[in-house]
Amino acid sequence: MKHLISIDQYNYQSLHTLFEKVDKEEYGFIETSYPKKGQIATLFYEPSTRTSASFHSAATQLGYSVLSINEVNYSSVTKGETLEDTIKTIGSYVDLIVLRHGEKGASKRAASISQVPIINAGDGIGEHPTQTLLDLYTIWKEKSKIDGLNITLMGDLKNGRTVHSLIKILRLFNVHINLISPSSLKLPNEYLKHSDQESTQFLPYAATTDVLYVTRVQKERGSKEEYKLSLSELNQLPKTAIVLHPLPRRKELPITFDNDPRAKYFQQIKNGLLVRKALLRQFLENN
Amino acid sequence: MKHLISIDQYNYQSLHTLFEKVDKEEYGFIETSYPKKGQIATLFYEPSTRTSASFHSAATQLGYSVLSINEVNYSSVTKGETLEDTIKTIGSYVDLIVLRHGEKGASKRAASISQVPIINAGDGIGEHPTQTLLDLYTIWKEKSKIDGLNITLMGDLKNGRTVHSLIKILRLFNVHINLISPSSLKLPNEYLKHSDQESTQFLPYAATTDVLYVTRVQKERGSKEEYKLSLSELNQLPKTAIVLHPLPRRKELPITFDNDPRAKYFQQIKNGLLVRKALLRQFLENN
Amino acid sequence: MKHLISIDQYNYQSLHTLFEKVDKEEYGFIETSYPKKGQIATLFYEPSTRTSASFHSAATQLGYSVLSINEVNYSSVTKGETLEDTIKTIGSYVDLIVLRHGEKGASKRAASISQVPIINAGDGIGEHPTQTLLDLYTIWKEKSKIDGLNITLMGDLKNGRTVHSLIKILRLFNVHINLISPSSLKLPNEYLKHSDQESTQFLPYAATTDVLYVTRVQKERGSKEEYKLSLSELNQLPKTAIVLHPLPRRKELPITFDNDPRAKYFQQIKNGLLVRKALLRQFLENN
Repeated sequence: MKHLISIDQYNYQSLHTLFEKVDKEEYGFIETSYPKKGQIATLFYEPSTRTSASFHSAATQLGYSVLSINEVNYSSVTKGETLEDTIKTIGSYVDLIVLRHGEKGASKRAASISQVPIINAGDGIGEHPTQTLLDLYTIWKEKSKIDGLNITLMGDLKNGRTVHSLIKILRLFNVHINLISPSSLKLPNEYLKHSDQESTQFLPYAATTDVLYVTRVQKERGSKEEYKLSLSELNQLPKTAIVLHPLPRRKELPITFDNDPRAKYFQQIKNGLLVRKALLRQFLENN
Repeated sequence: MKHLISIDQYNYQSLHTLFEKVDKEEYGFIETSYPKKGQIATLFYEPSTRTSASFHSAATQLGYSVLSINEVNYSSVTKGETLEDTIKTIGSYVDLIVLRHGEKGASKRAASISQVPIINAGDGIGEHPTQTLLDLYTIWKEKSKIDGLNITLMGDLKNGRTVHSLIKILRLFNVHINLISPSSLKLPNEYLKHSDQESTQFLPYAATTDVLYVTRVQKERGSKEEYKLSLSELNQLPKTAIVLHPLPRRKELPITFDNDPRAKYFQQIKNGLLVRKALLRQFLENN
Repeated sequence: MKHLISIDQYNYQSLHTLFEKVDKEEYGFIETSYPKKGQIATLFYEPSTRTSASFHSAATQLGYSVLSINEVNYSSVTKGETLEDTIKTIGSYVDLIVLRHGEKGASKRAASISQVPIINAGDGIGEHPTQTLLDLYTIWKEKSKIDGLNITLMGDLKNGRTVHSLIKILRLFNVHINLISPSSLKLPNEYLKHSDQESTQFLPYAATTDVLYVTRVQKERGSKEEYKLSLSELNQLPKTAIVLHPLPRRKELPITFDNDPRAKYFQQIKNGLLVRKALLRQFLENN
């Protein structure tokens, strides 16, 4: 693997290989060979401080330097130049480029001409594969497996890039999927499988759910629907269930649930750091 | 002390303990254990490049990495998320958060849920304790004491957060305070003490002043008054007096005074670096 | 040399001394004494991510830390303060300042009061000396000499700061210069020499050209003319010619030419890194 563009680059086996690697990463600056001689760029055509901060910290904790370039469209990197020319320029300075771009397929175009590895950190309505990998890793880590799980996805299933990629990769496993959403925000047919359960109600599925994945209302994509789970609804989940959310949340999950041992959404943030450390190590150290 | 939120966390004794520590810090990269394995974040909801640059350099000179997040409100860190969720997220990446926020009390809220130390770098009309500490340290360093000094505060005494915090902490010492301002910009009564001298004129107090602290007109808070000291007025100060200013200045102090040995406002900038190095060391190294 | 303000600080001999030094720099993090204890600031009043990224990587690869301050005018560094006060403040934090400013002469003003070295990274319609040095170094490196070359400058010769500085320094050498531009974008008389060939046509000069330097249309300065070279036109150049462009390009050069061995414009980017490494080393290590 020379670039990370799409979650489709992984299969059942290579996902497990990655998870074993992530499992060996640790929080903080534990490297003995620190600092390392190398630099990554976070090249963000769309702002996403959250994702860029995660990659920044992952690189820093491994001992690499970071060149942060944000809001490229407003910057003079471009002055009308093509993505390809910008990638060649920045690739002259650094050893790897983490790319966020507004257009689907931008990462693939970048990879096709780049002399350094490209990691797709979100390309418009396309993919955001490291988010998908950290979601899946969190399930694997918390439940010790993925096969056999009963997974309930809830929220805006129509517009969420995150949830579409997660569903796509869950199809590699033998899981049962429940899809809970307002009727106007149902999962597009292309992602649907005949065995999925669709509903507008959460409660009927609470007691059998192993993993509840709640998504954010995509207000920036025009959704006006609001939905939120109450503490008493969440308490219908089994004691061994886990609750995930890609964050930031609005009111989908009450803060009173944050200290519940089933709440794993801040653990997802931490796992994101580990996943990105493992990926950077793989691409920069061939490891 | 787990977080630095308010100048009220200090008393007469602990201020001197801090000053002795600051006194041992030096300019530049003198650490033998460089780099260190740790990272701070400067999380600035309001722009203040001056303050964030000072913390950045302090951390860097100690050997720590820095994650700079500026203008959070325009960034995607938030997407409507609460300060508390953002603090939990960024606190998953770094070992300490320097927080600048537009709302009074924001640092206290952040500290109440943060897993890493918070340093308040200004919370709206609240406090900016590291500015106050560097002001006070400069007086202590330059005059070898604070008790017994005749201190003249001049300028916009109504709107300046800086000057309010400084006056509050000067009350811990046995000092005489003169307050010079246009009549529309007088110190609010809550900060006034009966022994203070109030005036609209500087010259009557010049000859007895040990420390002259000049503040900036707060144009962004609606002040229209201008005031400035001429070189000949400043020359009425004793040869042993010192002149401070939190910078940036407008026309309050003439550049022709910059090379006068009494001008210590650029020394304040340098002392700010030392104070922040000592504070970061204390919070990150328990030292 | 204490600061780098203008290309006029160089002569025939000192240029060659610099080129020999640049020639010893290498790509990537090859330093044995890594990291180094020092920090530079990139203080950019005008955005130029391309230039600031190049200096950032040069400093990082040498082992120095970087304090990036972009879009100073919108930032709170200034709050109306003078360039001189800002330079004194930032100079208290770092060991060298790379300055980009909108006003001609700003770097000279900064240098006149700065306690640390200033490198001019562009001052309005003034100079951008490191761009000129990397252009000239690329010619020297690729052709093994500068004297005796036939150099064709093509494009907007009226408005380009880059091309004016390059012509000025080429006058130190024994070169023949052809100037190709639309008639509305001719080189100003002050830069013209009687032996120069002026034309609106490229083709008559193609076969004798050793170095073709193509510039960008300066749309931000009001130029509406477009010009572009086709692959077949470029193929009229000798096999040993080289083609340069300061980038970003618009449509002046076709991407189909990028893999031609004569296309050296991405090599210029790489050489810019080497030139800046050599310059930073010189100013920071007296070397």
